[in-house]
Amino acid sequence: MKKFMNTAETMVAESVEGFVRAHETFVMFGPERRFIRRRHLTSGKVALISGGGAGHEPMHIGFVGHGMLDAACVGHIFTSPTPGQIIAAIEAADTGAGCLLVVKNYDGDLMNFEMAIEMAGERHRLDMVIVSDDIETSRTGESRGRRGVAGTLIVEKILGAAAERGMSLDELKQLGEGLNTRIRSMGVALNGVTVPQTERTTFALEPGEMEMGVGIHGEPGHARQPFATADAIVGHLCKTIISDIAAAPGARALLFVNGLGGTPPAELYLAYNGARRFIEESGIPIERSLVGNYVTSLDMQGLSVTLALLTDEERSLWDAPVATAALYWP
Amino acid sequence: MKKFMNTAETMVAESVEGFVRAHETFVMFGPERRFIRRRHLTSGKVALISGGGAGHEPMHIGFVGHGMLDAACVGHIFTSPTPGQIIAAIEAADTGAGCLLVVKNYDGDLMNFEMAIEMAGERHRLDMVIVSDDIETSRTGESRGRRGVAGTLIVEKILGAAAERGMSLDELKQLGEGLNTRIRSMGVALNGVTVPQTERTTFALEPGEMEMGVGIHGEPGHARQPFATADAIVGHLCKTIISDIAAAPGARALLFVNGLGGTPPAELYLAYNGARRFIEESGIPIERSLVGNYVTSLDMQGLSVTLALLTDEERSLWDAPVATAALYWP
Repeated sequence: MKKFMNTAETMVAESVEGFVRAHETFVMFGPERRFIRRRHLTSGKVALISGGGAGHEPMHIGFVGHGMLDAACVGHIFTSPTPGQIIAAIEAADTGAGCLLVVKNYDGDLMNFEMAIEMAGERHRLDMVIVSDDIETSRTGESRGRRGVAGTLIVEKILGAAAERGMSLDELKQLGEGLNTRIRSMGVALNGVTVPQTERTTFALEPGEMEMGVGIHGEPGHARQPFATADAIVGHLCKTIISDIAAAPGARALLFVNGLGGTPPAELYLAYNGARRFIEESGIPIERSLVGNYVTSLDMQGLSVTLALLTDEERSLWDAPVATAALYWP
Repeated sequence: MKKFMNTAETMVAESVEGFVRAHETFVMFGPERRFIRRRHLTSGKVALISGGGAGHEPMHIGFVGHGMLDAACVGHIFTSPTPGQIIAAIEAADTGAGCLLVVKNYDGDLMNFEMAIEMAGERHRLDMVIVSDDIETSRTGESRGRRGVAGTLIVEKILGAAAERGMSLDELKQLGEGLNTRIRSMGVALNGVTVPQTERTTFALEPGEMEMGVGIHGEPGHARQPFATADAIVGHLCKTIISDIAAAPGARALLFVNGLGGTPPAELYLAYNGARRFIEESGIPIERSLVGNYVTSLDMQGLSVTLALLTDEERSLWDAPVATAALYWP
């Protein structure tokens, strides 16, 4: 296992410290380093808070800033932040209009975010939006359905812009839940992921194999297939997504090709090119695009394709200014 | 070799097409797709043009836009663009004030950019800035000294901002040459690079080895060493850089930790954290930072550290607005 790290125990803390130092003009640690927050909060705005396990950077800490999140909580690698961390973030970020928590659909995350809401709910107006964009369903027995993966970025961007515009907690929840039904993602991996603490690879692939339908925590997918051309791989992802998403004629789509950590930009752009052609030939015009390593799974070589069907309002919210470490436009 | 590609022959063209489609609001192809240019040029401004082999994305195409490059030429993988491509970019980008070409210090690039200047020099005011920030010197016999690597981004950002402010061709050249003397980079790789055309790895490393002083074209470094902790690796890079750069007391530094393509953001931030601590403990305060995969070497797992000592003017130019695919701030 060759990773740039010192010890498995300190890896997350050192990485997050580096992140905060690199972006200290607009982010800072909360007390006891339990969460990352915007340096300047907007009074009276609903606060948007997210979080999850480490190993997915720049998500979520890279989405903290004007137009997106107010605070983010980082757990251990692939492990939910604790209710205590989430409550600390709520205490700091709530400026009077309440907090909306954006949670990826995993049992561990849901349990801890729900517990935080229960414990802090008397002192704060709180609500939650659950993101569940992955075509694949978690295989754990106690699963609550589809996993939340790269589409989380889209939900956080659009809700973040809506919160800046003054939308109320109830309106934001409604917007987020509607949007979540129109986002689908699917991933493919060319290698498994080595988790630093165990030094174990979550699944092993031969040189000529790939894993279809992977999650972002090293979960294996639904099928091990022979490695193929980019067009064949991306075509399969897009076809599966399109058959699952109800695209009405005239639908306006955002296409997001996300790298899982070990895939270079040149390959992501090539995959985007194939995905865009495939989706447009299926009759869905792509009006907005995003390409890059945004929702990673440690150093996994692989990518995911996310398709989101946006309303006019949502598209305008996507276009609204954002100033975070990972997403930035005027 | 598992890469997201269709054929080695079409890989660059498909990737660049994907890039242009993803960013079509502000970039476009030049005629016959020989270069990438800004959609809107500014009349009377000196045009900044760069280019080089493919395989380093987002450099240089990701730096085309307001506040940085006017045009960029992409060659085959690790191969200079042709003089014909460079001349075509000059013809399109020169709006009357001439063109400054930013060239990385490799024989192939120099030869082709110099030839373009010779051939187009009668019709256009042209000059060149050569970037040579790598501590390592190219090992090819005909080398003209230090290689140009990740520091090229800093030169292009600062010259780009200066050009927007109306600086003349002569002033830009002088600014660029001065800046280049105050930038140093050094890289380390955890694996070699597989070039798609040959399917050959440029150098092979054992699980417990790393290569110190690598270039961005799969060139091996000056020493193969046992793999070590991030602090030991980054400490070695920083120590070598500091001993080579003449940092006067009170120097103001920009620290850039660059991923070589296969290293995830979390590891880059961890490395940045160690590098920043090491450099600041050496008495050089870091005032500006950049962390990410900007100057890659296909899917190489590795990183480089770049330290730039900036004048007040250069720091202000670094801070000036930029709107490209890879760098974006208001």
